[in-house]
Amino acid sequence: MSNGLAGEFAMIARHFRPLAGSGALELGDDAAVFDPPPGLRMVAAADAIVAGVHFLPDDPPDLVGRKLLRVNLSDLAAMGATPYGYLMTVSLPRATPEAWLAGFAAGLAADQAEFGLHLLGGDTTRTPGPISLSLTILGTVEPGRELRRAGALAGDGLWVSGTIGDGALGLLAAQGRLADPGGALADRYRLPRPRVALGRRLAGIAHAVMDVSDGLVQDAAHLCRAGGVGATIEAALVPASDGAIAAGPEWLATRLTGGDDYELLMAVPDRYTAELAQIGREVGVPLTRIGRVVGAGAVVVTSDGSELRLPSGWDHFGPGRT
Amino acid sequence: MSNGLAGEFAMIARHFRPLAGSGALELGDDAAVFDPPPGLRMVAAADAIVAGVHFLPDDPPDLVGRKLLRVNLSDLAAMGATPYGYLMTVSLPRATPEAWLAGFAAGLAADQAEFGLHLLGGDTTRTPGPISLSLTILGTVEPGRELRRAGALAGDGLWVSGTIGDGALGLLAAQGRLADPGGALADRYRLPRPRVALGRRLAGIAHAVMDVSDGLVQDAAHLCRAGGVGATIEAALVPASDGAIAAGPEWLATRLTGGDDYELLMAVPDRYTAELAQIGREVGVPLTRIGRVVGAGAVVVTSDGSELRLPSGWDHFGPGRT
Repeated sequence: MSNGLAGEFAMIARHFRPLAGSGALELGDDAAVFDPPPGLRMVAAADAIVAGVHFLPDDPPDLVGRKLLRVNLSDLAAMGATPYGYLMTVSLPRATPEAWLAGFAAGLAADQAEFGLHLLGGDTTRTPGPISLSLTILGTVEPGRELRRAGALAGDGLWVSGTIGDGALGLLAAQGRLADPGGALADRYRLPRPRVALGRRLAGIAHAVMDVSDGLVQDAAHLCRAGGVGATIEAALVPASDGAIAAGPEWLATRLTGGDDYELLMAVPDRYTAELAQIGREVGVPLTRIGRVVGAGAVVVTSDGSELRLPSGWDHFGPGRT
Repeated sequence: MSNGLAGEFAMIARHFRPLAGSGALELGDDAAVFDPPPGLRMVAAADAIVAGVHFLPDDPPDLVGRKLLRVNLSDLAAMGATPYGYLMTVSLPRATPEAWLAGFAAGLAADQAEFGLHLLGGDTTRTPGPISLSLTILGTVEPGRELRRAGALAGDGLWVSGTIGDGALGLLAAQGRLADPGGALADRYRLPRPRVALGRRLAGIAHAVMDVSDGLVQDAAHLCRAGGVGATIEAALVPASDGAIAAGPEWLATRLTGGDDYELLMAVPDRYTAELAQIGREVGVPLTRIGRVVGAGAVVVTSDGSELRLPSGWDHFGPGRT
């Protein structure tokens, strides 16, 4: 791990070195060196998160670290991959207190243990802007067991894991713009639940898989475009958490088009419905059929049998985000 | 490649998709999938660069793209690795014109061709701060041929590639604070020359290798600390470019402690001097012995036989950097 921060900022390396795993060379070389597990394919994804855009500046630092790792773990989940390791770059404003770093590293350490991966390397730099974090995650998958976004066929059931809309409602709750007794919605915004265990079970079951990060409707459109198909989503079938139900039906459009769900969206032929339900029980994640893949066309959301008009998909640049 | 930028910012994906190589799945899935070359170890490094810290906001965008890739290629060079691919996250202010993106992507394309690697994936986001770029590079190396920072032995010659100090002087030149007729110094600041071909030849020759990115003296101290040794650097031996010579001897301390050289620092036993010189000729990079590794101790810079007092190493937070 190179360290662009001289002198006083060696403390940063001290916080990250305990996170380093085999191959990281204790972050003391210019790069990590590791032997890829023989016979496996490698899977790699990268996501950046920026204070004020993807997390709130006063979010607890341990949850920021865990969110950074988890949004990337969600990409591995969508590919059916097993976590292997990660590299990370951290750009910090001058005023960042050491306690923030300590909390950030503690959050990473907790999730490293939970998801079974280690830090391989990275870089720390100063920035005159907000805290900017970037993480590249590496995983492995058995050849032929990787999940793809393309492949949905007309007639497939369209399924989601968990509940949809809590991330978007949770952001509003964290901003004090939505009641959230107990804080469950804000918790879902701050701490995604990447469905890694589920993803690893879907090879041979799901025709197409992706994670829901930019909003259900927008991501369903991505999945359909990749497969040259369309889909119908029945709004009443889209699973809502207790918090989302309590928020009221007026938030339906926000739930369907909001982001930060980090659930899996799956196209599964009906002949695997029982097997899919069994997998859901085994990994402890509710799975719900929300609609159906149809021939070429758009994603249509219906309510009581008629088409539901929705605003366009979630936009990172919308009001209150930057 | 996930794209956190809805609607109008699909243009970003258009600029990056032509950079995608095999395994990137045309940036259309949640992650890249690739088969690591059998029998090789993988090497991975990550560096971030921020406008106003690591490059100047008005630097030509193609050179920003090339610098982002090259600072990471320099890490591979220091490990003796061959480039394989990269993932990248790009956080952009709202006002970034599409022409900036087009130029940035063109610079990446040029260096992909020159160094033989492709884009595997990444993420694009908005930021309220300056342009923030992060790149994770992947490379390969034959088992046992990886170079390490530790391993220097007392008596080894201490060598550098190319010339030292042009990056630091080039920043001053680019800021108009140092005369630079012809612009050679500023060019070296904006466009590092990662010594990938050299690094691949050093296994079995060099006891220890790292790249010089944070300033020669500071990085020599890193190499010495890793090996439990000290070193003496003779200031008069440190190679200077024509531009650095023209700048005058008053810039010696800046050259020795400045950053952004992206040359290789090598500890090589004298018995390999002839072989090292031959390698330098074959890869077309001048190699110069600047001093010698000694027993445990500090890095001492001498001039005319007496110790030279230097300010502390280069600091990304120094005047004019943020």
